[in-house]
Amino acid sequence: MRERSFVLGMDFGGTKMALATADDTGTILHRADIPTLPDAQEAVSRALEVAHQLIDCTRTQYQSQLRRVGVATMGITRDSGVLLAPNVAGWRELRLPQLLHAAFPGIPVLIANDVKSAALAEFKWGALQGMDPGLYVNLGTGIAVALIASGRIIQGAHGASGEIAYNPLTEHDVYGVRDDVAPLEERVGGRAIQRRAHDELGWGLGAGDLLRRAQRDPSVRIWLEPILRTLSFQLTHLVIALDPARVVIGGGLATVHEVIFPYLRQSLNSFVPFPPELVTAHFARDAGLMGAIALALDGAQAVQGG
Amino acid sequence: MRERSFVLGMDFGGTKMALATADDTGTILHRADIPTLPDAQEAVSRALEVAHQLIDCTRTQYQSQLRRVGVATMGITRDSGVLLAPNVAGWRELRLPQLLHAAFPGIPVLIANDVKSAALAEFKWGALQGMDPGLYVNLGTGIAVALIASGRIIQGAHGASGEIAYNPLTEHDVYGVRDDVAPLEERVGGRAIQRRAHDELGWGLGAGDLLRRAQRDPSVRIWLEPILRTLSFQLTHLVIALDPARVVIGGGLATVHEVIFPYLRQSLNSFVPFPPELVTAHFARDAGLMGAIALALDGAQAVQGG
Repeated sequence: MRERSFVLGMDFGGTKMALATADDTGTILHRADIPTLPDAQEAVSRALEVAHQLIDCTRTQYQSQLRRVGVATMGITRDSGVLLAPNVAGWRELRLPQLLHAAFPGIPVLIANDVKSAALAEFKWGALQGMDPGLYVNLGTGIAVALIASGRIIQGAHGASGEIAYNPLTEHDVYGVRDDVAPLEERVGGRAIQRRAHDELGWGLGAGDLLRRAQRDPSVRIWLEPILRTLSFQLTHLVIALDPARVVIGGGLATVHEVIFPYLRQSLNSFVPFPPELVTAHFARDAGLMGAIALALDGAQAVQGG
Repeated sequence: MRERSFVLGMDFGGTKMALATADDTGTILHRADIPTLPDAQEAVSRALEVAHQLIDCTRTQYQSQLRRVGVATMGITRDSGVLLAPNVAGWRELRLPQLLHAAFPGIPVLIANDVKSAALAEFKWGALQGMDPGLYVNLGTGIAVALIASGRIIQGAHGASGEIAYNPLTEHDVYGVRDDVAPLEERVGGRAIQRRAHDELGWGLGAGDLLRRAQRDPSVRIWLEPILRTLSFQLTHLVIALDPARVVIGGGLATVHEVIFPYLRQSLNSFVPFPPELVTAHFARDAGLMGAIALALDGAQAVQGG
């Protein structure tokens, strides 16, 4: 007889970390949300402490054993550190696989990029079900996409597919990833919008609040327009290249889709031979966590711990 | 005992049509190249005539039977016509599947876009072998790409993936596919370059000759530079999104890669987190034909004729 089992999912974000145990269907059994400590090493230690508490609770209550661990994290995880995660200090040097394997001896641990994990959750249970190819777009502090084709998330030859934060804005751009510049993210990312609003308008609003305000304040909408046009222009290129059945927008800024979608729709309708559907993500806030759970349940590309 | 068999490949291009029979390994047995007649219907009729001659020769010489037919053609083939093939008159109304099925009763016929077919040939036998993901770029009269992931060419939800001819050039562009405008192709496509050279320089050179001339004439290189910058900018977006192991450049303009590659390389090196290799296609002139043969041999997505 097969023993009852559960999985653990962890989502390491720039501001918070979400953890949960879940059963075979992805239903959450126990859950915790904690702030991301400024020191990367301490943040992971704290998360692992909480993870073990969740595991103990689940084990006792459901008479069940931990089967696999799925982890969604910023950037591109290598044994020696986490690449392309400049928004949070200390991750570049973090030996995440080693820490995770040491914390869960004998348990397979799967690590994936947070945006790719979110796309996996949408593909398995959410707004990208049956959409092949499908395009998931994360609009938040970070700007990135995930491409789905042949029933899988495209990882890329270096695990770096979808990192459109690094897209140049015009053909005259000079500085890019080689100079630690992420041109697109530094123009349309949540933190960039907030910073510019502070500098140019003298406002202390976050990007989300600013976009919400644009719904009733035309002067804010006019200020935002060039930013939304840049975003639409760049996403249109991607949609033409992939020809997805549906584009799903997730991330913190997806909550203000009423302001963003009209620009995107107009661009897609003008330039894409077969314009796809445009919808918001099903897992508004929990996409990364549900992706980590999906990762653990699917078990593909598992890295054996121990 | 299994009967000996062969396949037929046909590549319908804007200026010429290439046809060949081939054995199980893709080795060509008999071959013919004929000009594309200006009338679409007549062009296909002539091709089918020649096809039957090739089939007869092959059957007699090799005591072998026709197993499948693969066809590479411009645009997106539907039962009612060929979409997105504006460069050649009459294809929009051409009922290509019907004509092919009538010509080869009982034989499975596979039809694919010419650029996707070329990418398939490169993936199966050429410069994209083992490259997953891989990116194939056609630079010629037409501008299009093919994306390879999980061992397959991404077709798109409407068969229209890779049609980057329709990419807007800037966020201020207004006219696109809805207005029968293909902004990128009308700037960097071979015919567009030729037309502008004629209008602005008074020269009657084709795009290939013009690029060749740029190698020894700095004034031509300066004239071409903005065009090559536009191309590099747009391809960089795609390379960032896909993170391919290798980018393969094919099509007529790939023969002057010495002029194109330095611009592309500089852009990729500046902006792509993990810059891929950049090489020319293995099948310089025969990519479409070899793709049609590959299509027939693989037999995936076969449409049963009869």
